[in-house]
Amino acid sequence: MLYFDPAEGWSREEIEQAQVARLRATIAQARKAPIYCNRFDEMGITPDSIQSVDDVRKLPVTTKDDLRAQYPDKMNTVPRKDIVRMHASSGTTGSPTVIHYTQSDLDSWSDLVARCLHMVGVRPEHVFQNMTGYGLFTGGLGLHYGAERLGCLTMPSGPGNTKRQFMLMKDFNTYAAHIIPSYALYLGAALRDMGMAPEELPLGIVVTGAEPHTEEARQRIEKLLGVKAYNSYGLSEMNGPGVAFECTEQHGMHIWEDAFLPEIVDPVTLEPVADGEIGELIMTTLCRTGMPIIRYRTRDLTRFITDECPCGRQHRRIDRILGRADDMLIIKGVNIYPMQVERVLMEFSEVGENYVIELERENFIDQLRVKVEIKEEHFVEDMRVLQGLQRKIASRLCSEILITPRVEIVQHNSLPKSEGKAQRVVDKRE
Amino acid sequence: MLYFDPAEGWSREEIEQAQVARLRATIAQARKAPIYCNRFDEMGITPDSIQSVDDVRKLPVTTKDDLRAQYPDKMNTVPRKDIVRMHASSGTTGSPTVIHYTQSDLDSWSDLVARCLHMVGVRPEHVFQNMTGYGLFTGGLGLHYGAERLGCLTMPSGPGNTKRQFMLMKDFNTYAAHIIPSYALYLGAALRDMGMAPEELPLGIVVTGAEPHTEEARQRIEKLLGVKAYNSYGLSEMNGPGVAFECTEQHGMHIWEDAFLPEIVDPVTLEPVADGEIGELIMTTLCRTGMPIIRYRTRDLTRFITDECPCGRQHRRIDRILGRADDMLIIKGVNIYPMQVERVLMEFSEVGENYVIELERENFIDQLRVKVEIKEEHFVEDMRVLQGLQRKIASRLCSEILITPRVEIVQHNSLPKSEGKAQRVVDKRE
Repeated sequence: MLYFDPAEGWSREEIEQAQVARLRATIAQARKAPIYCNRFDEMGITPDSIQSVDDVRKLPVTTKDDLRAQYPDKMNTVPRKDIVRMHASSGTTGSPTVIHYTQSDLDSWSDLVARCLHMVGVRPEHVFQNMTGYGLFTGGLGLHYGAERLGCLTMPSGPGNTKRQFMLMKDFNTYAAHIIPSYALYLGAALRDMGMAPEELPLGIVVTGAEPHTEEARQRIEKLLGVKAYNSYGLSEMNGPGVAFECTEQHGMHIWEDAFLPEIVDPVTLEPVADGEIGELIMTTLCRTGMPIIRYRTRDLTRFITDECPCGRQHRRIDRILGRADDMLIIKGVNIYPMQVERVLMEFSEVGENYVIELERENFIDQLRVKVEIKEEHFVEDMRVLQGLQRKIASRLCSEILITPRVEIVQHNSLPKSEGKAQRVVDKRE
Repeated sequence: MLYFDPAEGWSREEIEQAQVARLRATIAQARKAPIYCNRFDEMGITPDSIQSVDDVRKLPVTTKDDLRAQYPDKMNTVPRKDIVRMHASSGTTGSPTVIHYTQSDLDSWSDLVARCLHMVGVRPEHVFQNMTGYGLFTGGLGLHYGAERLGCLTMPSGPGNTKRQFMLMKDFNTYAAHIIPSYALYLGAALRDMGMAPEELPLGIVVTGAEPHTEEARQRIEKLLGVKAYNSYGLSEMNGPGVAFECTEQHGMHIWEDAFLPEIVDPVTLEPVADGEIGELIMTTLCRTGMPIIRYRTRDLTRFITDECPCGRQHRRIDRILGRADDMLIIKGVNIYPMQVERVLMEFSEVGENYVIELERENFIDQLRVKVEIKEEHFVEDMRVLQGLQRKIASRLCSEILITPRVEIVQHNSLPKSEGKAQRVVDKRE
């Protein structure tokens, strides 16, 4: 079976035909929610407003604040008895963002995740170890249902307890695992510290998602764990995982355009950027029944990869997330994304897997401090050697982000560890 | 719809007919595992050995050590590609106990859990808040799949974060929740401490499982949270939750005898005890395809409740678990179960929701110390009053367990809290 779902193999024409039909149906469904009914009426929008894919631009955008204002369930478009699941963002400030799912939504979500796993070689005869937290976070149950849908032996091992994770991998011959990138780096370092070779693990494939990370971090994960690591993109507003996923080419993530209509726009003007240019990703659900979302502003910055994918799939690819519009740090007037810092750090073979970016204010001037762990075998007592490395890293960072940060090399295992999403930026200003 | 599943309404004759047929099929399936093949051959057992339900006694028992010896998958009776899930005990000592499930096993497990929830009044239009941990523990995913199968809006809120749990309950109008008993007591106390009345919560039904607890603890939970609390019994070796469940009579848990064949035996002789007598519960799976288990020694002590249940269901009831054979403490030659202590403590209205039993050795003699929190409003500075209460509790405990423990009353919120399974017994000997 080449494709898990025939839609994977659709031509551009087939994709766009389906998109137009599904967008029209989505408009009809969405207007059952007052927020869309009002906006559509104001703007004179009906399903007939959509004659081509580009007509999506006529529609209003939806923001995270819109979702918050419709808390807890005012965006639902089916009776409450037809809703069978909810997930929610952690909601550190204000109301959480809540997504409601019908059974049909759960089924199509699971199908999409299964399609992703199948695309990179996961098969029903494999063991899939799901090493992320479950609960309201969509990553855990999303991959769990997808792997089960594919027919894998799905092991809900959850996060943490590193030694036990390795034991389960070995004893059950785990071939594929879902791991948050920062935990994958941590696991890889732990394996090395335990004196084990990656070949001692049966692991062949790691799916990494939920945190933006760099190509350099991926290569580290692959080397440390002896695997192919595939980047997964999702957000709860678009179900969760299963929105876009790398194929075995590992060059950009295919967005499943039969289920989502993506646009990349200038975050200020909301006009489409030129093909291949970086902008904010906007997405519309095409198959959701319980809570369709029109032109959701993800705040994620990426670009379309414009050449044809050698894998043959016609679903367009996006580049790995270059940052969240909201994550952007402004230091001394310069825009900096944490991913730029990570990319530079991971180029240095002496540098370990853990780092933190600290923002400080000194004499009313913002300063950037980068603390980074050195690998155990590269640690030397000679301060001059370490200072030389600090200078080299600072200079490379300066050429990337245009300001010179204070680089501080710290010992292996001295920065706070995380078995969940890592906190890479600490703002100590004020 | 009176019953979620017609099997709920079967007569004794229908139940026993199904049990004989399913036990015969289970023997045929089980012998695909070497452990059963060898034992059956040694004992000359074939499906034809079973002509009546009582013939189950001809079969060999299975112990936890047997399961450990078959780690990781030597008891599987289907090809590996047909296994889609595994769960495991926490395995604090030795290999974990691992249970493998086929898709058909997961489906029948979900059906059984849905049947339990439906029996006590949970309906598809209700919101079900699943407040236990997910992962390898069967309680989380077991209730999750069951509630989803019933068609509830299933909220995977997970354990902990008490304020957020209350917020979700109120905002989503949660009618039913699954909570570990010790956390339910903790939640109830937190509600009282926040100055909220139980009526402010929309909660109507709480399912409590995973920890043995007393009738007195249930009544506390019901009063503190303003709910009906229903006791749930399960163990991963028999899928997880969904093995036995209280009906609205709240007098014993109906074992689903179309799916499990229960016996209660003397733990030493393995002979059946007289009807209504306390003994060790032994169970055989009747529907499991991936990993059938024959006559599993649960180590749980209970008794059959012998009168007819007014609810009309003919599936026999077991009493709430009176203790695990393994939990039994022997102090000064007397057998004591932690549940006996809890039952006495919860009789005292001054006593709070948290307690711990400590075993100490002094001059080569074992001592039992019971530390128990007093409710905030009952705390007084007058030591004489507290000492009087301590004496009263010690005297009631002595009449229940036949030795006099040292009772120590401590302030509200001073004992270690638990948001998962509580550790009620601390052995400080040696």
